[in-house]
Amino acid sequence: MQLQLSTWPEIEAHLAKSRAILIPIGSTEQHGPNGLLGTDALCPEIIARRAGDAAGILVAPTFNVGQAQHHMAFAGTITLRPSTMIAAMMDWAQSLRRHGFEKLYWLNGHGGNIATITAAFSEIYHGVSFAGAGHNQPPLRCSLRNWWELPGVMDVCRQLFPVGEGSHATPSEVSVTWFGYPEAARQVAMSPRIAPNGPILDAEDFRRRYPDGRMGSDPSQASAAAGEKIVSAAVKALIAEFNQFAAD
Amino acid sequence: MQLQLSTWPEIEAHLAKSRAILIPIGSTEQHGPNGLLGTDALCPEIIARRAGDAAGILVAPTFNVGQAQHHMAFAGTITLRPSTMIAAMMDWAQSLRRHGFEKLYWLNGHGGNIATITAAFSEIYHGVSFAGAGHNQPPLRCSLRNWWELPGVMDVCRQLFPVGEGSHATPSEVSVTWFGYPEAARQVAMSPRIAPNGPILDAEDFRRRYPDGRMGSDPSQASAAAGEKIVSAAVKALIAEFNQFAAD
Amino acid sequence: MQLQLSTWPEIEAHLAKSRAILIPIGSTEQHGPNGLLGTDALCPEIIARRAGDAAGILVAPTFNVGQAQHHMAFAGTITLRPSTMIAAMMDWAQSLRRHGFEKLYWLNGHGGNIATITAAFSEIYHGVSFAGAGHNQPPLRCSLRNWWELPGVMDVCRQLFPVGEGSHATPSEVSVTWFGYPEAARQVAMSPRIAPNGPILDAEDFRRRYPDGRMGSDPSQASAAAGEKIVSAAVKALIAEFNQFAAD
Amino acid sequence: MQLQLSTWPEIEAHLAKSRAILIPIGSTEQHGPNGLLGTDALCPEIIARRAGDAAGILVAPTFNVGQAQHHMAFAGTITLRPSTMIAAMMDWAQSLRRHGFEKLYWLNGHGGNIATITAAFSEIYHGVSFAGAGHNQPPLRCSLRNWWELPGVMDVCRQLFPVGEGSHATPSEVSVTWFGYPEAARQVAMSPRIAPNGPILDAEDFRRRYPDGRMGSDPSQASAAAGEKIVSAAVKALIAEFNQFAAD
Amino acid sequence: MQLQLSTWPEIEAHLAKSRAILIPIGSTEQHGPNGLLGTDALCPEIIARRAGDAAGILVAPTFNVGQAQHHMAFAGTITLRPSTMIAAMMDWAQSLRRHGFEKLYWLNGHGGNIATITAAFSEIYHGVSFAGAGHNQPPLRCSLRNWWELPGVMDVCRQLFPVGEGSHATPSEVSVTWFGYPEAARQVAMSPRIAPNGPILDAEDFRRRYPDGRMGSDPSQASAAAGEKIVSAAVKALIAEFNQFAAD
Amino acid sequence: MQLQLSTWPEIEAHLAKSRAILIPIGSTEQHGPNGLLGTDALCPEIIARRAGDAAGILVAPTFNVGQAQHHMAFAGTITLRPSTMIAAMMDWAQSLRRHGFEKLYWLNGHGGNIATITAAFSEIYHGVSFAGAGHNQPPLRCSLRNWWELPGVMDVCRQLFPVGEGSHATPSEVSVTWFGYPEAARQVAMSPRIAPNGPILDAEDFRRRYPDGRMGSDPSQASAAAGEKIVSAAVKALIAEFNQFAAD
Repeated sequence: MQLQLSTWPEIEAHLAKSRAILIPIGSTEQHGPNGLLGTDALCPEIIARRAGDAAGILVAPTFNVGQAQHHMAFAGTITLRPSTMIAAMMDWAQSLRRHGFEKLYWLNGHGGNIATITAAFSEIYHGVSFAGAGHNQPPLRCSLRNWWELPGVMDVCRQLFPVGEGSHATPSEVSVTWFGYPEAARQVAMSPRIAPNGPILDAEDFRRRYPDGRMGSDPSQASAAAGEKIVSAAVKALIAEFNQFAAD
Repeated sequence: MQLQLSTWPEIEAHLAKSRAILIPIGSTEQHGPNGLLGTDALCPEIIARRAGDAAGILVAPTFNVGQAQHHMAFAGTITLRPSTMIAAMMDWAQSLRRHGFEKLYWLNGHGGNIATITAAFSEIYHGVSFAGAGHNQPPLRCSLRNWWELPGVMDVCRQLFPVGEGSHATPSEVSVTWFGYPEAARQVAMSPRIAPNGPILDAEDFRRRYPDGRMGSDPSQASAAAGEKIVSAAVKALIAEFNQFAAD
Repeated sequence: MQLQLSTWPEIEAHLAKSRAILIPIGSTEQHGPNGLLGTDALCPEIIARRAGDAAGILVAPTFNVGQAQHHMAFAGTITLRPSTMIAAMMDWAQSLRRHGFEKLYWLNGHGGNIATITAAFSEIYHGVSFAGAGHNQPPLRCSLRNWWELPGVMDVCRQLFPVGEGSHATPSEVSVTWFGYPEAARQVAMSPRIAPNGPILDAEDFRRRYPDGRMGSDPSQASAAAGEKIVSAAVKALIAEFNQFAAD
Repeated sequence: MQLQLSTWPEIEAHLAKSRAILIPIGSTEQHGPNGLLGTDALCPEIIARRAGDAAGILVAPTFNVGQAQHHMAFAGTITLRPSTMIAAMMDWAQSLRRHGFEKLYWLNGHGGNIATITAAFSEIYHGVSFAGAGHNQPPLRCSLRNWWELPGVMDVCRQLFPVGEGSHATPSEVSVTWFGYPEAARQVAMSPRIAPNGPILDAEDFRRRYPDGRMGSDPSQASAAAGEKIVSAAVKALIAEFNQFAAD
Repeated sequence: MQLQLSTWPEIEAHLAKSRAILIPIGSTEQHGPNGLLGTDALCPEIIARRAGDAAGILVAPTFNVGQAQHHMAFAGTITLRPSTMIAAMMDWAQSLRRHGFEKLYWLNGHGGNIATITAAFSEIYHGVSFAGAGHNQPPLRCSLRNWWELPGVMDVCRQLFPVGEGSHATPSEVSVTWFGYPEAARQVAMSPRIAPNGPILDAEDFRRRYPDGRMGSDPSQASAAAGEKIVSAAVKALIAEFNQFAAD
Repeated sequence: MQLQLSTWPEIEAHLAKSRAILIPIGSTEQHGPNGLLGTDALCPEIIARRAGDAAGILVAPTFNVGQAQHHMAFAGTITLRPSTMIAAMMDWAQSLRRHGFEKLYWLNGHGGNIATITAAFSEIYHGVSFAGAGHNQPPLRCSLRNWWELPGVMDVCRQLFPVGEGSHATPSEVSVTWFGYPEAARQVAMSPRIAPNGPILDAEDFRRRYPDGRMGSDPSQASAAAGEKIVSAAVKALIAEFNQFAAD
């Protein structure tokens, strides 16, 4: 059940049954020679929507631009300053709280988002934490989960790609997007086969260290078929975890 | 050509030919008994992507949550404070400028966004306007177009819906989304047939005046077939206008 | 009745009768070869104060610097970033609400302000719209009116200046200021007689397109006598509209 | 010479002779039983404009709402949060710097503004102070002067009102406004004759301590004639000091 | 009693007896050839902790970086923009209010902080002043005292250093830090013996006027023994004043 | 070498040799029945200063209040909103960059700070990443290290406290502070011996789950002697790592 494809009376009816919502959150940033700029937003979106359809979970629109300053030396990357991202997440949370949502489960697609998402949770909680005795703020609970850390998912990935998974522009995430958008699959020569790995600093330093944008990965192994297996595992795990969170 | 479905080398190659980009911008807000919460984001997205495919125009991800405080008394609406939206648009613009984009064409799907988008353009231009002689800021030009004001589009709408177009949750916009998402079409009883119209103030006042969320409209007339006609007219006009803007 | 020329007990007494206030809001920006930098603040101020005197309407101090980045290439222009202007309008509104004012009528003198003023209204309403059930925020209603759009005013202007009214540094607005400040009237040669018109982008582009600051206008036609006619029509319309707003 | 009553070519010509500008800055806040809400904005404005006329000094529009939270329990007071006031002063300063102004002389009418104005100067200077070697920021120098501290002014005040000058709603400041606006003079009974004095905390505490808004003063002594003497001394001192500042 | 060296149950117990807390606030900035960069934070810290130990006063951690833009041309200086400092002080105040503290006594060590601290108090009070009737904000009272203005302290300083006290990098403040950190005392040649004095503008201007960082002072007179006398006087006065403030 | 105990000429001399600085960063928050409120600021400060003394590393003042909203239901905790903390860290970084520092090593004492510190690094890098070709921003590199993750430190902790280390108010961190401040050691009864563990949400939830503030720990095992062993291991590892970072 997608919020953007629902009417308001349908959401009102849903709220009578559940106070929880699933929010895909990602980034728009370079993903190497054959990975899509939308990879980190598309992966959680693909997984979340399938889980929503299969289990009646309400899925919010995708928060599709995140924390990507370190990829800014590659064309097409779009980034929010952390302070902007915190403000925007505050507004999403305040909007949803107004309607009676009490549990926000953010399914994240980008490692570089983790810090700012966590900081945003803290900013959201500050409203209550500063308020002291006698306040009338309704409860609100946020949860962050990176899709690749859903139980069982990394096992599938490691089985599929025992070598060259790496940490950015991985064959696993590229596969997930190709499964979702088969027409986007493309063969691109890349060398060396496995990209270098190392630290992440500013944008210019990133491009010097990782000239084609990959970090430690060999995404030439990606395939839509592999993506299907990963998505299947992720959807199953997500449904279980979300329902547990909603029921707590 | 969608940015999120492209790789960075493809964007880099595109920039060698064109410095312009098309950004769909909308809102996530109630659209009455049978309209989707995503209507105002989906309409410009549907039109922009078709134009992008037809004419090789580069289309950014959709800026999908906007200025919707007046709809906050209806479940599912999500809104950004204007100051947050300005900050986020600043970051998108600064990101794109860094890569060499010089012309940002924002295709808008929500009347309530116009003021804040226009204010954001002014905030973006202030960077240059405060800078004085000798600055090294590259040029950047922003343009705002509401999709329903593309040349010829309102003519089609009026022909299709001579009565009951109204100003919110219109049969035209509902039709466009049903054309894009045929499975989302639904028949919902609504009364009165044509909703009341009037001013827009805060969220609680809005719900008192417009109990089911519609303003002056009869969206029970909507159909995917009508949507196709509207989209067809809009795509044609958009391609012409965008190319003119890019060539100026 | 001007707030700045009243004492606090007088305002307290006024509040017992009316919860509405009239706020002139303008800009400090170039107005071509013979127009005053204060034109856009002076016009609503002149009209508002006369209406206040004639009908006992309470008039706030003038919000005298606004959104003028596009005029920054002309000496003397002062501008607020939109985010600053929104913050300042928020503070004015919160101050007035604290005293019991419930209706703020902003009489605007500058087209370039419209977007940011409207965005500021939305920011003000967000306080209530995020608050949810059980909040104790008092009601507050904002209204924006451009003085030249008061009923009947443009008719007078068109009659006085059938040719060369244009859109910036118009003979009408220049006339209004000369009526208010007769000593400020001056004859300045300008050429071409009617200035070019076109789009508004950043400050440097503006000066290239409109070298003497006028847009589409011939303000050499301005006169204090014409200003008197315009002001007279505007004051009459303003009193009627404000009283309606206050009574709603 | 008032900026708001000048044209941009006149300002451009003035800049060729002088890079300095005089900015009246005040507050809109209660001033006791017979003092005007605009007192603290009107006093520097009255003095500045007379100095401007007499000596060809360029006078900016008045920054007319300031730091007045402690007066918020009295109807009609309007206040800016300090963070808002700093942002607005930054924008004024950046605007004026763009045109080539290098010296901003702020003539202040409100003791409660001093801290925030001084903090704003520091915020303005931070731009340069963070910039490091090789920056291309033009020089900018800010100066703050409270009108009552202009050389010789307090001597005149003490001579006129040896008893009951006090610290808020003083007979001196009330006199200055009555000289500027003779029609605003009014006789109001007040008791005790000399108001209590003490510390300034929040708005509610202020009203408890100073029930009619005065602090330590007896403004029933005010007169337009006294105001004329004070203004005369202030204008003379201001011209000398401003010219010295501009010449440094 | 230092908050940072206490446990939370001890603070809870303390709150049952007193709602007041003492917060040392300073700056990290150059203090001439022989003064420590931490001087302005260390002085109030040294005095406050001794008072806390002697009289059971609760002392918060030191707010150790302040408003020091004018010293930024000297290596090691760290500064906060005023808007940042106001936000941080707001958070400290909101945190302490949540626990039940009602009186915050800020002992300041830096003249350049006074304006921003005072502005921050106003920002803190705005929360209450905007809130209007029926709000449930607990009372909060802030007090600012510069340590050198504690009753009797300047008398001691003048007696110790009748010549060359000056206004920055004074022998008195250097002595206080050497008393607190005897190992930090050092002999450094400086010339002229008494530094020049004058106005404070931006960082580059400051270094031009005061090449070694001193203003009007001869800190070569400093000694730990002198520091002991000053601290002794300050501690005694501080205990009396703080207890009075807490009891009010 | 402590910055706050140095003079500016000494820092200038140090910069000629090294462009790196070590910044202890922590939090002021409850640490259970026998842990100090300052624990998370004191631990990195104690370790950093010893490393600074032993190896000539320059140590900045301690950033002593951080992200502690989840501890706000315990008296004495002080917290910064993440957006405030990011702004303050930006100012510290900009200040240090101005003087020529190029490498900022932040030694952190609080797990709850990690997200916001990482977000702040991203905010700092955005300045460069948005700037595009031809900018003149000097390089700046930030590094974050939690003291307990310095190589070898957790081995020592596990050896000392094989049971009951837990995750908040651990015997290890309490021991470190008691080694630094032996007079602060105290015996406090606590039960159960090992505290419960679990998730961290808002402040009120935290106190419900962890009534005395501990998470999973038995800090009754703490001792100054254990602290000495931990500090010794940490100092050694820190010197090696910092020097490597400075030399890179």
